[in-house]
Amino acid sequence: MINRYLKVGKALAATIKDIAKHTGLGLATISSYLNGGNVREANREKIETAIEELNFEVNEVARGLKTNKTKTIGVVIPELNNIFCAEIITGVEDVLRNHGYATIVCDCRTDKELEKEAVDFLYRKRVDGIINMPVNVDGSHLKSFQKSGKPIVLIDRKINGIDCDCVLADNLTAAKNAVKRLVENGHTKIGMIGGPEEIFTAQERLLGYKTALMEAGIVPEEKLVVQGDYTIDSGVRCLENLVKQNPDMTAVFVANYEMTMGAVIGINELGIRIPEDLSIIGFDNTEFARACKPKLTIVTQPMREIAKNVAQIILKRMEADQRNPEASDFQVIKLQTDIVEGNSVRRI
Amino acid sequence: MINRYLKVGKALAATIKDIAKHTGLGLATISSYLNGGNVREANREKIETAIEELNFEVNEVARGLKTNKTKTIGVVIPELNNIFCAEIITGVEDVLRNHGYATIVCDCRTDKELEKEAVDFLYRKRVDGIINMPVNVDGSHLKSFQKSGKPIVLIDRKINGIDCDCVLADNLTAAKNAVKRLVENGHTKIGMIGGPEEIFTAQERLLGYKTALMEAGIVPEEKLVVQGDYTIDSGVRCLENLVKQNPDMTAVFVANYEMTMGAVIGINELGIRIPEDLSIIGFDNTEFARACKPKLTIVTQPMREIAKNVAQIILKRMEADQRNPEASDFQVIKLQTDIVEGNSVRRI
Repeated sequence: MINRYLKVGKALAATIKDIAKHTGLGLATISSYLNGGNVREANREKIETAIEELNFEVNEVARGLKTNKTKTIGVVIPELNNIFCAEIITGVEDVLRNHGYATIVCDCRTDKELEKEAVDFLYRKRVDGIINMPVNVDGSHLKSFQKSGKPIVLIDRKINGIDCDCVLADNLTAAKNAVKRLVENGHTKIGMIGGPEEIFTAQERLLGYKTALMEAGIVPEEKLVVQGDYTIDSGVRCLENLVKQNPDMTAVFVANYEMTMGAVIGINELGIRIPEDLSIIGFDNTEFARACKPKLTIVTQPMREIAKNVAQIILKRMEADQRNPEASDFQVIKLQTDIVEGNSVRRI
Repeated sequence: MINRYLKVGKALAATIKDIAKHTGLGLATISSYLNGGNVREANREKIETAIEELNFEVNEVARGLKTNKTKTIGVVIPELNNIFCAEIITGVEDVLRNHGYATIVCDCRTDKELEKEAVDFLYRKRVDGIINMPVNVDGSHLKSFQKSGKPIVLIDRKINGIDCDCVLADNLTAAKNAVKRLVENGHTKIGMIGGPEEIFTAQERLLGYKTALMEAGIVPEEKLVVQGDYTIDSGVRCLENLVKQNPDMTAVFVANYEMTMGAVIGINELGIRIPEDLSIIGFDNTEFARACKPKLTIVTQPMREIAKNVAQIILKRMEADQRNPEASDFQVIKLQTDIVEGNSVRRI
């Protein structure tokens, strides 16, 4: 036992020079490896073997001081157990990892204060950039970080007042097309379970709903719209409220995945039949839609495309080292959504 | 525009002394705040206002060098979009955050090499401890980190050869009770969709299945057991295979959440009725179970308890600064599971 710890003590003294001696490679190559630069595959293997054998501790902390780059990206999201967040992050990580970047993921539990703490934590960790699906729509949590000149990319939700790139789905068209689909099947009393009113994408989806109705000559009714908070529980509650307030409602559109699951739970527990008693179009998860009985018709967002675009933009900003881009340089990328057909919409 | 960046240039020079001057507080208090120590609420607010106004950059990188503590825990999991992982991490983060620790979450896509890269990355980031739901069951990815003497806590899966604490559900009893429930309802031809055979919990669940059958005097049949890889897709495929190979099968037990969703998709798409044609007991997600029609009977793990235990153990190890605990000091905490009743099991 003592031996083991002695060995660690000794190993801590291993230096970059020991690795050079061990591998026969030049200091420049090893330094390049340690700083995340390109190194030939064969040399990479030699260095890694030497690191292993010498139990060399790469002092990333010290490295960060020297290069002022940590090769690390911070990701701040509302909820880790929200499937949209999880899918997007997984996709973003895949791309960034291939470019030698690690990610630090912070889940802020849809809490503005925790979101600010997360951004501050990442700032102190000197991440090279931040990807954020923002909870706080006034953007104040990002102001300090933005002053550092490092890039910020927003996902899913735009913030007025923060000049940065943003990748999102065309939520207005997504909702409009879904509701249009219901109208085309003869529905006029169409309920909507929407997201929190202060969230940009929730506003867009609500506008899409209203637009589709109005284009069909139907006047939107306030009592047909309820707002949840994007959780499963709120989906259950909103569905129950809608059904209670609107006995003549024949269809409902639900504006995110978790609330779609909640609405289906509510429908099952009230003994309502899909689509005989109520038609439904949900959001975001093709697997869940297939597991429902009958299969749900849903709006799908291009998760992979969103992730790819987010990763590419932040890489571009970091590599260009554009510490001072003009506001007009920033992009808002809107990606098109799709509808996956199920059997949850009845023609009436 | 220029002004903004000039301001940053100036602000970067702000020191801890500037904060002392600005707040009227002593250097010790400010230092304590910056190093994650306890500071009175009123002082904390003063310091944070000063940091904001002076745009002081807390150099966490430099701080790490000085204290040799980063107040950061690394978490390495197989899949971010696995609901069990996501729920546990969320719970662990909540406890650690209350103790002033941040977490760095690394998702290794169920890939042993990426898992090793993640542990090495966290090692270089000098995290104070690692929480791991291991993919590589030989534990070689953890050996270097373990030499540092910092704590490791394993979730869900034990590894022979790595001396450390481990928190898991009593998977054997969980599976045994589920299958016993099916036997009590008259089923004898019971299929099982299990996890990868090299994974400890998957072995335990399989053993539980076999034990329940044998205790009831039923000889387990090989063709009634199929092994998936814990994904939704594999759940669909396994269900299809089981049904094809076993026309006389009347019930199936599925050993994780994703495969349960997959099995339900398979059942729906084959036009099989639950529970008339096939009874099913699934795993892990009460909301999904409620969204199914009919509601699924499922085994539930005590996610919150698991998370709480993991966080408490790692905090204890770090605070005790036990760099050299005896192997016998380590705990394996086994938590009991539960069955949530649905309508997916028929009495025959």
